[in-house]
Amino acid sequence: MCRVLAREISSHVGKAVCLEGFLHWKRDLGGIRFVLLRDRSGVVQVVVDRRFELPLAESSMRVVGRVVENPKAPGGYEVVAEDLEFYAKAVEPSPIEIPKEEWRASPETLLEYRYVSLRGEKARAPLKLQAALVRGFRSYLDAQGFTEIFTPKIVSAGAEGGSNLFGVDYFEHRAYLAQSPQLYKQIMVGVFERVYEVAPVFRAEQHATSRHLNEYLSLDVEMGFIRSEEDVMALEEELLRAMLEEARRSAEFEARLLEVEWPNTQEMPRLEHKEARRILREELGLAVGADLNEEAERALGAWAKERWGVDFLFVTKYPEAARPFYAYPEGDGLTRGFDLLFRGLEITSGGQRIHQHEVLVEQLRKKGHDPAQFAGYLEVFKYGMPPHGGFAIGAERLTQRLAGLPNVRYARAFPRDRHRLTP
Amino acid sequence: MCRVLAREISSHVGKAVCLEGFLHWKRDLGGIRFVLLRDRSGVVQVVVDRRFELPLAESSMRVVGRVVENPKAPGGYEVVAEDLEFYAKAVEPSPIEIPKEEWRASPETLLEYRYVSLRGEKARAPLKLQAALVRGFRSYLDAQGFTEIFTPKIVSAGAEGGSNLFGVDYFEHRAYLAQSPQLYKQIMVGVFERVYEVAPVFRAEQHATSRHLNEYLSLDVEMGFIRSEEDVMALEEELLRAMLEEARRSAEFEARLLEVEWPNTQEMPRLEHKEARRILREELGLAVGADLNEEAERALGAWAKERWGVDFLFVTKYPEAARPFYAYPEGDGLTRGFDLLFRGLEITSGGQRIHQHEVLVEQLRKKGHDPAQFAGYLEVFKYGMPPHGGFAIGAERLTQRLAGLPNVRYARAFPRDRHRLTP
Repeated sequence: MCRVLAREISSHVGKAVCLEGFLHWKRDLGGIRFVLLRDRSGVVQVVVDRRFELPLAESSMRVVGRVVENPKAPGGYEVVAEDLEFYAKAVEPSPIEIPKEEWRASPETLLEYRYVSLRGEKARAPLKLQAALVRGFRSYLDAQGFTEIFTPKIVSAGAEGGSNLFGVDYFEHRAYLAQSPQLYKQIMVGVFERVYEVAPVFRAEQHATSRHLNEYLSLDVEMGFIRSEEDVMALEEELLRAMLEEARRSAEFEARLLEVEWPNTQEMPRLEHKEARRILREELGLAVGADLNEEAERALGAWAKERWGVDFLFVTKYPEAARPFYAYPEGDGLTRGFDLLFRGLEITSGGQRIHQHEVLVEQLRKKGHDPAQFAGYLEVFKYGMPPHGGFAIGAERLTQRLAGLPNVRYARAFPRDRHRLTP
Repeated sequence: MCRVLAREISSHVGKAVCLEGFLHWKRDLGGIRFVLLRDRSGVVQVVVDRRFELPLAESSMRVVGRVVENPKAPGGYEVVAEDLEFYAKAVEPSPIEIPKEEWRASPETLLEYRYVSLRGEKARAPLKLQAALVRGFRSYLDAQGFTEIFTPKIVSAGAEGGSNLFGVDYFEHRAYLAQSPQLYKQIMVGVFERVYEVAPVFRAEQHATSRHLNEYLSLDVEMGFIRSEEDVMALEEELLRAMLEEARRSAEFEARLLEVEWPNTQEMPRLEHKEARRILREELGLAVGADLNEEAERALGAWAKERWGVDFLFVTKYPEAARPFYAYPEGDGLTRGFDLLFRGLEITSGGQRIHQHEVLVEQLRKKGHDPAQFAGYLEVFKYGMPPHGGFAIGAERLTQRLAGLPNVRYARAFPRDRHRLTP
């Protein structure tokens, strides 16, 4: 007798099945006892008679029984247990009442007991949604001739010049955790032309906000032989459509549980940074600097939703002052760099990069850097790089906004933040 | 006029095409000049007349020309250039002669200039092969109901007890780089039952051998509700078949270039550790300890190839002395742990894990550990874990053996070893 998943029982009515999972919840109505068994697909009601002792919730278990229709049971079906077996009984009551899905409980409590709170159907759903998004990311890019790369996370220097780095003791040397695979993905454009990487990045930022993580999953893309950053944005648009399509297809159950509102992927308009600032200032009454802060992003997202009915908004032609030295200069102090806002949250930075050695040297000088300090970076550009550009999508931020989570931490299995190193 | 890849030109004979890539090689025969253009798909010969100046090799370029048959050209076709454009000219000669594919050059030189040596067709091929293996890994597991997970690489303690850890300065705390996602993937079995992760792991091992890396790509799998480690090995067998099938299908060109001999995936026999030791001692004359060293693995691999014609060999029922505390005890001082050798190289450690809290406590004591030191680990097992097991495949070792590379470093884009932190 093969194992059947909770979600499949409706096709086994009248038959004997075997179910495996966790004791999600139990209720004793005197004459009759109900158990909810939870497996990776969902929960199913099991009717248990007095023969069996029921241990604490969360015990791992196996049920053999017969499937019957019961309009009062969740989903309309239940299993009448003929045999029950417990693989490992819980030895303490769970510190979190898992069936309650206490989303409004203190984040610190939920995260402290993450190893068990994650078992909740709603708690785990964003991670399933994220896995589907990432699968869509890879499969779309594979089909476009991209090669997946795996670049080092232990590095000898920072990609952007040195701040916000976590130090690592690497034998007798000082090393750092990679903030971004930026230089490596650029090198790999010289090798495979089109590359992507799905890997953690590390930022020693002091922030402790609902949108920052010190370790997060970066979905990195870089492509060669482009005409301008327009090619890069066009790719990202198609990519996001494919990712959301995959999530919609393969995480349908989780999306329903989380009440996901699927975003408008038809249109992702471009708004020049200068125009965005004008709108913020004149129409929305916000004072803004060269980089758009959290408040400005939120206001702009709301404005674009209201005005154009869109969820995604590209802010383009960022000024040099708000971009790293390798951003392709566009003249007038502007660059070919862009950000992508999703429902008012920056989920991507990207743009065309400088591919000519001499232009890089010039831009470094202009930014007040000593080119000698960037010798390792510059070296790579001595040997002929194609025009190229790329971007990175923060997987947790995309997931957070899609799932409507109050905090980006819930979009990561075991978040690391300013004060959290465990579990 | 759309861009055509080098590998596609045979279907454009007589037509005008546009090619983009790198100036791989050039030759001046007086009256006529030949260029090889290299793109992500391969190389193509281009005939160039005197109008055009040719820059240094590796310059990035664009060719517009007409495709003609030429039996003397590599592949039988060439392009007669009508227009040439260079996007970025190399400013220095490449330190490595890329077309020569100097595999026999000193590894240190090849790795020192990895940012350009990787451009060689043979140098990049193993990475393409690896990307295909990893794709096969994920797609097989996705189809089996596994969920991809992303667990933290910055951790507060080691999974195996504390040696070989790289230290990280995490704000005012001491943290470490994860040696393995072991505990996290076990936790996630309580959440999704079947999980996998593709991520870097970090080992501060002092070794500097041709088979060790201090940062490598670990293909981790963990599954719940198993009967014994046999279920885990059966999964790994099917998984490896799927991975090799995907590599064969989608990296055919690279496999031919590397002269890959596809392994026998029909049979992956099991050999108990005790019997393996007897064979090593009595038939092969090798003295061996509880753990099999490099020499023993090689000898055993050769023996299995000779005797049974197999490339993969499971060594099962490892003794407790050679396994971590969480290995499921089998009685008689043995465990349900196994290794998988591929052509005489260990590419996997795996097994069934202990799922009962009280057994874990007992095993910790038996190993001489203080359970209080493992409170964080033990905590997870208080809430009912199913019988479970898993394994990890070292992606670079699998790639190395498959591609016949002399050193595991060539199976990683930018290797980190005892003495190498750059590029």
